[in-house]
Amino acid sequence: MTGFAFDILSTDKAARRGRVTTAHGTFETPAFMATATAATVKGMLPDAVRAAGAELAIANTYHLMLRPTAERVARLGGLHAFMDWPGPIVTDSGGFQVMSLAKLRVIDERKGAVFRSHLDGSLHELSPERSMQIQHLLDSDIAMCFDECTPHPATPEQAAVSMRMSMRWAERCKTAFKPREGYALFGINQGSTYPHLRLESAAALAALELDGYGIGGLAVGEGQEVMFATLDETVPALKASIPRYLMGVGRPDDIVGAVRRGVDMFDCVMPTRSGRTGQAFTRRGTVNIRNARHLDDRRALDSECGCLACTRYSRAYLHHLFRGEEMLGPMLLTAHNMQYYQDLMRGLRGAIEQGKLDDFAAAFHEAQGRGDVEAGI
Amino acid sequence: MTGFAFDILSTDKAARRGRVTTAHGTFETPAFMATATAATVKGMLPDAVRAAGAELAIANTYHLMLRPTAERVARLGGLHAFMDWPGPIVTDSGGFQVMSLAKLRVIDERKGAVFRSHLDGSLHELSPERSMQIQHLLDSDIAMCFDECTPHPATPEQAAVSMRMSMRWAERCKTAFKPREGYALFGINQGSTYPHLRLESAAALAALELDGYGIGGLAVGEGQEVMFATLDETVPALKASIPRYLMGVGRPDDIVGAVRRGVDMFDCVMPTRSGRTGQAFTRRGTVNIRNARHLDDRRALDSECGCLACTRYSRAYLHHLFRGEEMLGPMLLTAHNMQYYQDLMRGLRGAIEQGKLDDFAAAFHEAQGRGDVEAGI
Repeated sequence: MTGFAFDILSTDKAARRGRVTTAHGTFETPAFMATATAATVKGMLPDAVRAAGAELAIANTYHLMLRPTAERVARLGGLHAFMDWPGPIVTDSGGFQVMSLAKLRVIDERKGAVFRSHLDGSLHELSPERSMQIQHLLDSDIAMCFDECTPHPATPEQAAVSMRMSMRWAERCKTAFKPREGYALFGINQGSTYPHLRLESAAALAALELDGYGIGGLAVGEGQEVMFATLDETVPALKASIPRYLMGVGRPDDIVGAVRRGVDMFDCVMPTRSGRTGQAFTRRGTVNIRNARHLDDRRALDSECGCLACTRYSRAYLHHLFRGEEMLGPMLLTAHNMQYYQDLMRGLRGAIEQGKLDDFAAAFHEAQGRGDVEAGI
Repeated sequence: MTGFAFDILSTDKAARRGRVTTAHGTFETPAFMATATAATVKGMLPDAVRAAGAELAIANTYHLMLRPTAERVARLGGLHAFMDWPGPIVTDSGGFQVMSLAKLRVIDERKGAVFRSHLDGSLHELSPERSMQIQHLLDSDIAMCFDECTPHPATPEQAAVSMRMSMRWAERCKTAFKPREGYALFGINQGSTYPHLRLESAAALAALELDGYGIGGLAVGEGQEVMFATLDETVPALKASIPRYLMGVGRPDDIVGAVRRGVDMFDCVMPTRSGRTGQAFTRRGTVNIRNARHLDDRRALDSECGCLACTRYSRAYLHHLFRGEEMLGPMLLTAHNMQYYQDLMRGLRGAIEQGKLDDFAAAFHEAQGRGDVEAGI
């Protein structure tokens, strides 16, 4: 019983252009997911998210188990109906958020994480088995194994202990996961920045015959160079036939570099979170629309972008909205950043199809370096 | 030179079904304006505002003179281009906001209002002439005369002094207003709740040959009964051939009552502001979506409404969004309330056309009284 499929349509060196089939439809890879942590893409209607080109959303076990609870989402028909996202949904397992958000957490190999909610201090447990149950209740198309996100920096010894526990948890997740047609379980490769641990983790996951790989524990402060070096060691050790998902990454140049190294899927709060604070990603680099230099700026945010913020409004208007703390400011910049990221992914997919990813990457870096101020007002 | 026109298409007793033509297109009356105080309808894209049925937006002299300034809006091509609203725009004159928002204000008949900005304490003057200039710079289709909003309660003496100054200011506005094809200047009827003052004000405005009437100084705490009684005395004294705009009104039942009394235009922050705090207007009365009774509520907010909030989501989901302070909650409830108000206006217009406004009003009140909780979960 599977129905879940990953078809590689073309390759360009290590990079892959693919298509993933799930119980709730397909998505093209390399893919950037729409972040819908609490069952909503912050500041955007689902129709607009889809119109920007996103086909895959990611929601979060930790957030949804606390509110509105997984059982309630299940009673209300599952996450797809609840949030009006009929397409494929990934759910993160909650491991990362337990470490970054929960209070007074205790990690116990048998029980998993015992922690207090950051919302109301209530006590909760999240084990590999419970994480699988929650992701099942949410009706996630792609469930992630429950893991411990190894802190950075970690000594090789600390990283080994943490990774090996996550691998034993992955085995428990595999046992607890209920196979259903079109639903998938991804393992999460760990091992900090140590190649030998990453390879050990890759071997452990390969033995479990999972449907895809998360690559976890990166973009946690190690820097892009170390992240890319870790990918250079890790990715070749992963089975080529299943998708690779670099979790929590990243900036546009992180994504371009990771796609060139064979990564297929990405998620990151950056486009939506930055949008809410007035930071826009453009083809010439980032723009802070709150900056007073935009007071009388008649230009579009990004003249090559087709989003509403860029086709209907001046930078002066967007600046006005942020100065006045008007909701439409975050709404428009979120929509723009979503469009920018999806355009980037579309560009990467097209470049792989044409075998021109190197040229695409060179043009991308050249344009980013050109900067915004010089763009000829 | 006019081009501005008000055509009465049909009547039902005192109520009128009309069409107003401006330099930026037409709108059907009775009309409820989309509130765009600071050149944005809070939480809604203009396309969605139009799709809900709103044809007319109202922006504000006081807010826009402070930020981004009228001169800047003019340099950027005027309000229609600035905020992507190609349709008709009304601008309030700033008189009301000087009274309700500005600090350390001094009213001087010659100078107008001298006040400090509520944003940064900077000193400003707003005279009848300057208000006209600002509304011209904004490129408002319908400018409002600069007036003093008489406080409530006021003695007959206080109300008379205030109203007579506003009438002298209206004369100065008429002199300062630059006539342009399709652009209009409305006077504002004042006089508190005193019929003889309302009639004196009506006569003063009639002599000025303005393009429409605002009815000001109501919905300031006098209660619906007194407001309707004041309308009963005032409206018959207004010229029938030009539009009547009841400023800052109101709740759905206020609007139904005022339309029956011959009012043509309305504006109120209530649908958008209430939407942001979780209050929804429905055909069975108001619903507070934050209430815990909606935790597992699978029903639509209003089963007869065609907006996205009602057709795509359960109350349980909307409740979840508000509990989590997610932007999508205010966005969806604002869109719903906008749709509700525009549907109400459409219903009123249709009822007048058919000569069935009494029946419409009776059915409206009956449904509102039915309440929401009993609506058969």
